Amino acid sequence: MTGTVYLVGAGPGAPDLLTLRAARLLAAADIVFHDALVPREVLALAMRAVRVSVGKRCGRHNTAQRFINKRLIDAARRYAVVVRLKGGDPLLFGRAQEEIAALEAVGVAYEIVPGITAAMAAAAAVGTSLSQRGTVRSVALATPRAGEGEDASDWIKAFSAADAGAIYMGIGEAPSIAEQLIGHGKPPSLPVAVVENASLAGERIVHTTLASLRLLDARKFTGPTLLLIGPQFGARGVRIADDELTSSRRSAASSKRA
Amino acid sequence: MTGTVYLVGAGPGAPDLLTLRAARLLAAADIVFHDALVPREVLALAMRAVRVSVGKRCGRHNTAQRFINKRLIDAARRYAVVVRLKGGDPLLFGRAQEEIAALEAVGVAYEIVPGITAAMAAAAAVGTSLSQRGTVRSVALATPRAGEGEDASDWIKAFSAADAGAIYMGIGEAPSIAEQLIGHGKPPSLPVAVVENASLAGERIVHTTLASLRLLDARKFTGPTLLLIGPQFGARGVRIADDELTSSRRSAASSKRA
Repeated sequence: MTGTVYLVGAGPGAPDLLTLRAARLLAAADIVFHDALVPREVLALAMRAVRVSVGKRCGRHNTAQRFINKRLIDAARRYAVVVRLKGGDPLLFGRAQEEIAALEAVGVAYEIVPGITAAMAAAAAVGTSLSQRGTVRSVALATPRAGEGEDASDWIKAFSAADAGAIYMGIGEAPSIAEQLIGHGKPPSLPVAVVENASLAGERIVHTTLASLRLLDARKFTGPTLLLIGPQFGARGVRIADDELTSSRRSAASSKRA
Repeated sequence: MTGTVYLVGAGPGAPDLLTLRAARLLAAADIVFHDALVPREVLALAMRAVRVSVGKRCGRHNTAQRFINKRLIDAARRYAVVVRLKGGDPLLFGRAQEEIAALEAVGVAYEIVPGITAAMAAAAAVGTSLSQRGTVRSVALATPRAGEGEDASDWIKAFSAADAGAIYMGIGEAPSIAEQLIGHGKPPSLPVAVVENASLAGERIVHTTLASLRLLDARKFTGPTLLLIGPQFGARGVRIADDELTSSRRSAASSKRA
């Protein structure tokens, strides 16, 4: 007898931004394989389940991914309800395709349960719509993270062509990204909202520009951080100079919503 | 005394793809202003609330939007918990910015509660990740819908530059969109998944290509329909010729997942 593997989005972090379906599946789960970033309160919903942490925060290797695939298949042969819990939405920058392919190859049934992706939570934190009627009709979601040796994607060019967008897992190379976007014709004055820990207690928003982003010290951001870039992300609240966020003496402007 | 307006995402349609936070707010709401597409089962969660339908499915006018803004402000002066419930996520193609600006202008407190946007539900229905490690690192979310007379967005060009993407509210002009994307250099063989009623009982997926999309008869799609376009959306299941979906004798290929 073979169980079903549910690839479930855990959302951006706040436990109550989980979907009702995800909560129900966690309560029914026999075993849960989860990423490192899934918060304890969410895992606590899986009362009956064996809980297995399989995530690394950065730089997962293919071997690790193959090991996760194998464990999902093994679990489906032993348990009825297997939950694979991923931060955000499973089908956006979550490597779900590799798990889906592995499950399909051996005929294990699976279902995908969408989750709130980080860009939506970050935009909600800032209080600014990702799209803007008439002026921002294309929104790019992109990441600099590539596979090992595989890179068939000119994502910087694509991001430059969009009216606005969000960059996932890009804080570590923010200065280089800013430089490249300016090189592709984006104005140095283009607003950027750097959003750390969107929806969580340690949520922090820094309003800056592409020009100032070139000086950002990424080490000041230790939680998951998204870059929202577009004309609509200019600070609307009080602007506070914050030298600590930059690696040089020039300051980036930051603000908190009133 | 003034209440708080909660701009809440209702998700793609399936009632259990609502977030826990949205469900709690609906249960606590004094009044709910909702779009036409929000399903009855979701509204039923607002047990104590006055329920007001303010949505049109297409072609909302600015006057209508101004009327909604005014009603939200009036409600906040009378009730403690005012919910503005929008299909999908409020900050993506939902005109939330106009409501936020109106609330800020008069000092009414508001909060944004993200929801599952249609692209995630459509990708889940197809069983295919929007991003693909190494090859699809930029995902465009775009819409042909513009404001009245305002159109500062070259969304077709932006969409063409991305590795893959989803087009919202574009089914009515699908043939023209396909033509334009081919004109911008996308290959005619590029796979397209047309997803109607994602996450709902009437969910339907048609696998086709840009070339065949030029012949699609949009009148065959009466529910909310998303176009997923990218190399990864080729049909993996059985392909069924389906003359009914096209407006000429040439057939588009369709499939249902096994």
